[in-house]
Amino acid sequence: MTSVLVTGANRGIGLGLVRELLNDPSVATVIATVRDIDAAKDLTSIENSRLHVITCEVTDEKSVEAAVEKVAEIVDGKGLDVLINNAGIYRGLLLDGDVSKAVVMEQFEVNAFAPLLVGNKFLGLLKRAAELKGSAQIANISSTLGALEYAMSQSTEKPKTVIYAMSKAALNMLTRRQAFEYKEYKIRSTVFTPGWVQTEMGAADMDSMVEESTGPLAKLILSLTEEHNGEYYRYSGEKLPW
Amino acid sequence: MTSVLVTGANRGIGLGLVRELLNDPSVATVIATVRDIDAAKDLTSIENSRLHVITCEVTDEKSVEAAVEKVAEIVDGKGLDVLINNAGIYRGLLLDGDVSKAVVMEQFEVNAFAPLLVGNKFLGLLKRAAELKGSAQIANISSTLGALEYAMSQSTEKPKTVIYAMSKAALNMLTRRQAFEYKEYKIRSTVFTPGWVQTEMGAADMDSMVEESTGPLAKLILSLTEEHNGEYYRYSGEKLPW
Repeated sequence: MTSVLVTGANRGIGLGLVRELLNDPSVATVIATVRDIDAAKDLTSIENSRLHVITCEVTDEKSVEAAVEKVAEIVDGKGLDVLINNAGIYRGLLLDGDVSKAVVMEQFEVNAFAPLLVGNKFLGLLKRAAELKGSAQIANISSTLGALEYAMSQSTEKPKTVIYAMSKAALNMLTRRQAFEYKEYKIRSTVFTPGWVQTEMGAADMDSMVEESTGPLAKLILSLTEEHNGEYYRYSGEKLPW
Repeated sequence: MTSVLVTGANRGIGLGLVRELLNDPSVATVIATVRDIDAAKDLTSIENSRLHVITCEVTDEKSVEAAVEKVAEIVDGKGLDVLINNAGIYRGLLLDGDVSKAVVMEQFEVNAFAPLLVGNKFLGLLKRAAELKGSAQIANISSTLGALEYAMSQSTEKPKTVIYAMSKAALNMLTRRQAFEYKEYKIRSTVFTPGWVQTEMGAADMDSMVEESTGPLAKLILSLTEEHNGEYYRYSGEKLPW
């Protein structure tokens, strides 16, 4: 019986993944982390004894350490099987417009540094799960905008996505290195794109777009094997180039 | 007659590029930027009327703006033909060791944010050169460690290079987007690897390694054409995958 943690679960892809995971009977425990529990009504209104909602500011060392302690209590010696680094932000910036250092650094902090930090702090619980079951899994949620291969065509329509794309390319690199360096602990790392830039979407078609993506994505994450280690997939399972 | 600016020119690849550029008679003006002129004796001891040494803290908006003003005076209406974003730092970190947020963010700030900022602030001077001569060029100095394609083999020997690699993957993405978005101004952007991680090298063989790299690299940068726009090259001219 699998335990899965999802960061940034208050809305969008994170919330959608929580819903899909709760629908899967093989998942015993879903831990959903949010920055602010009071502002996560859609999540906290889900009534399910397998769901645990905890606070975690993913860019803050102390907050992540506190979350690790809470998760250790919840899984009670069995470790964490799957860590989904979903929390992310989108900050728009034009390369030939005004550049704000604070905006660029915030983009890197949340989308690239935080997944590194969270992976690092949860390493003990992932190791424990891998010892007990033979493997554990990190799933990093990136974007097709993180693909260098596609960068010169995609930017046609989305010039403001440059720093978002840079942060996701860094996240893709993190995944490769986690895959390599955590291999000795039997912990795999794989990176995914939900298929579109979440925060740019209009509210109107948001729900159906999320469901279309998180249904297949949750199944894919729960079915990963050694061949997926260090690779990059669309939610639909199609392997992507870097 | 070409004007070229090199950031981080106090030592290593930056200093080597300045020397090579001064050896090329087609280069009329070399502008070398350093954080601290007093600590750049190897550079300031070069006696050559085509060399201009100015201060620039590449992560600081005001400092970069001041440098742009000085360069505008130097080139005197003719614009800047080639901008070489060479300034970079190496910070070691192990994915399964202690993670310092300050160290990670400093790595992103210098290696990924600064080239974006410098490219943005010098855009006016690059545009001017492109108007006069038909094209201008940004050359970003990355590393083979920035290649996602190679990441899972290279990390064998160099596990501490993870955040350096992440910052260089982000820089590679910046290059792709600059190439695309500055195209309308006839400004190209291309990314290079000098072949090894500068700051990890021993001092003993440093000089010969630098020369071996900067000789071909300077020639390559001065000979770039449209086909190189948005692509990734080893100093020797070999095209690299992402």
